[in-house]
Amino acid sequence: MSRIYNFSAGPSMLPVEVLEQCAAEMLDYNGSGMSVMEMSHRSPVYDAIIKETEADFRKLMNIPDNYKVLFLQGGASTQFAAVPLNLMKTGKADYVVSGQFSKKAYKEAQKYGDAKCIASSEDRTYAYIPEITPDMVREDADYVHVCYNNTIFGTKYPEVPNVGDKVLVADMSSCITSEPVDVTKFGCIYAGAQKNMAPAGLTVVIIREDLLGAEKEFTPVMLSYKEMAEADSMYNTPPCYAIYVAGLVYKWALKNGGLEAMKKRNEEKAALLYDYIDSSKLFKATADKKYRSMMNVCFVTGDADLDKKFCKEAEAAGLSNLKGHRSVGGMRASIYNAMPKEGVEKLVEFMKAFEAANA
Amino acid sequence: MSRIYNFSAGPSMLPVEVLEQCAAEMLDYNGSGMSVMEMSHRSPVYDAIIKETEADFRKLMNIPDNYKVLFLQGGASTQFAAVPLNLMKTGKADYVVSGQFSKKAYKEAQKYGDAKCIASSEDRTYAYIPEITPDMVREDADYVHVCYNNTIFGTKYPEVPNVGDKVLVADMSSCITSEPVDVTKFGCIYAGAQKNMAPAGLTVVIIREDLLGAEKEFTPVMLSYKEMAEADSMYNTPPCYAIYVAGLVYKWALKNGGLEAMKKRNEEKAALLYDYIDSSKLFKATADKKYRSMMNVCFVTGDADLDKKFCKEAEAAGLSNLKGHRSVGGMRASIYNAMPKEGVEKLVEFMKAFEAANA
Repeated sequence: MSRIYNFSAGPSMLPVEVLEQCAAEMLDYNGSGMSVMEMSHRSPVYDAIIKETEADFRKLMNIPDNYKVLFLQGGASTQFAAVPLNLMKTGKADYVVSGQFSKKAYKEAQKYGDAKCIASSEDRTYAYIPEITPDMVREDADYVHVCYNNTIFGTKYPEVPNVGDKVLVADMSSCITSEPVDVTKFGCIYAGAQKNMAPAGLTVVIIREDLLGAEKEFTPVMLSYKEMAEADSMYNTPPCYAIYVAGLVYKWALKNGGLEAMKKRNEEKAALLYDYIDSSKLFKATADKKYRSMMNVCFVTGDADLDKKFCKEAEAAGLSNLKGHRSVGGMRASIYNAMPKEGVEKLVEFMKAFEAANA
Repeated sequence: MSRIYNFSAGPSMLPVEVLEQCAAEMLDYNGSGMSVMEMSHRSPVYDAIIKETEADFRKLMNIPDNYKVLFLQGGASTQFAAVPLNLMKTGKADYVVSGQFSKKAYKEAQKYGDAKCIASSEDRTYAYIPEITPDMVREDADYVHVCYNNTIFGTKYPEVPNVGDKVLVADMSSCITSEPVDVTKFGCIYAGAQKNMAPAGLTVVIIREDLLGAEKEFTPVMLSYKEMAEADSMYNTPPCYAIYVAGLVYKWALKNGGLEAMKKRNEEKAALLYDYIDSSKLFKATADKKYRSMMNVCFVTGDADLDKKFCKEAEAAGLSNLKGHRSVGGMRASIYNAMPKEGVEKLVEFMKAFEAANA
């Protein structure tokens, strides 16, 4: 068996020791005589798993008591509807469009009320984060929605945007648990788990309690934050196994120093890559420096054929899934929490050799 | 390691060889150097998995070409909204209420139009299936919704209900792939996968193509059958790992003779249990004979304390999760495809001994 370095934008690498534990416990979790996949979600043994997972996630993210944590399904795309269905109380919401997913969120919200795009970076293929100030937000907007890290374009908010006293809602699918975040600055944070936390099929929502209970009457019960909060995410069977894996990943992150340590590791990994790219004559980073993501590093050679050759040769060298999204082209190295530093070192080594060979 | 016999109503037992394969492939699927949990859903290696899973499911269920198979999230409870959102074209739909879940489906549909309960068995705690005839269905109803097997009450339709030329929609969460079913008699079949097919977090929808495209304009894109069909269930990241496990389970079922063989096995298992219960002086089956489920066998002693004692002693003997749902009380043995015959034999043995000891 030889593991590759998988630079996929998601689903993506999981810590090896988490996978090893999954394998070891597959036929018998902790002497229960069952796989976690086989357990009744109402059983004491599973109840302990989901409760511990939530407790570890709260600890890791430093989530205050007045926020609920929901373990849901359907990915961020389902939240694109759930957010306006639950939070568009008076019918207006402001959106910042900083990439393909925030644009989708904005379009989906238009089904449910007056969603307005108050800032966009579409003019330069989302190479930057459009900055906002409180005066840009409509007086009567129920919330402001942002995508905190743009997976496809490799950009990230350098700091929490200032929306004055408005409720800030953030899609953090591709940066959650990559560094500490001040949860109190947000009304709602949501994230598909398949990048930094777990296999695909789990969506985590962190929602301030006072925002619950304003859902539109035609909201599907499964998309109602209030219903899901009241049922402790157990209105029906939750995605039990993905929650269990998330729990193992949270324990791994805590054991490795929590989010401060994750941030340090991620900064080091990203610096390795960006520093080399900035010094390179062949490769060029596509995102503006100020807004560069630590998770998704996008770069090009400027020659589509050469980009293709790069990805093909990298793949053969065990550096996988480096092809950029079709809307940007070039390359993208997604280096989430579980990507070891050696993976980035190997990539930089490979890029240097490729540059030398293709000068 | 000692595996128990797990009679949970869901999530529930998976075939041991499927779990063994999951464990063996956890760190490296088929030489890819990745876990299936880590794969990009857009990668060729994952594409082959989902396509093969769908092909095997179509083969197993004998699904005609004019039906789409969708791999979704959110469980049957999400379908309780998705069905009316997608299929309530003219605004009317008829529901048969044969248990707690069909009642929930009926209530959810009321959010979206004129949902009518045309038959119910609530009068006798859902101990039977209320029969329907075409004349009971409203002339202008868009569809008739039934729950084909009622997990909580242990009842099942003895045959496909006759709804004339109306579209029949069935929740088959707790009986799908337990026996052959004539898909052409249904417009839409949906099922949470966590009983007979996979871990929780996957919902399968089988939908006749001509029914696509009538969704209400405020339907969340993730709940639109048309959008999901057009995207081959990849509008966003699907629950990749649960789909992979479902694929292994389908292969297991095909290898073991397909649904005719599953039916034979399941009939034998159910007969073992029902025959003994019918001969017992202590235990009594709660569902009417004609409507008995092969998957969920509900029974009582008539004495709540004795029921409790039974469950406790059974648990200690490695016969787990036999407690009935709180709305019925007593016991429930869920004996899905993956429950081996020996599990049922052990249960009957145990029941006999318990009866002798508590006569």
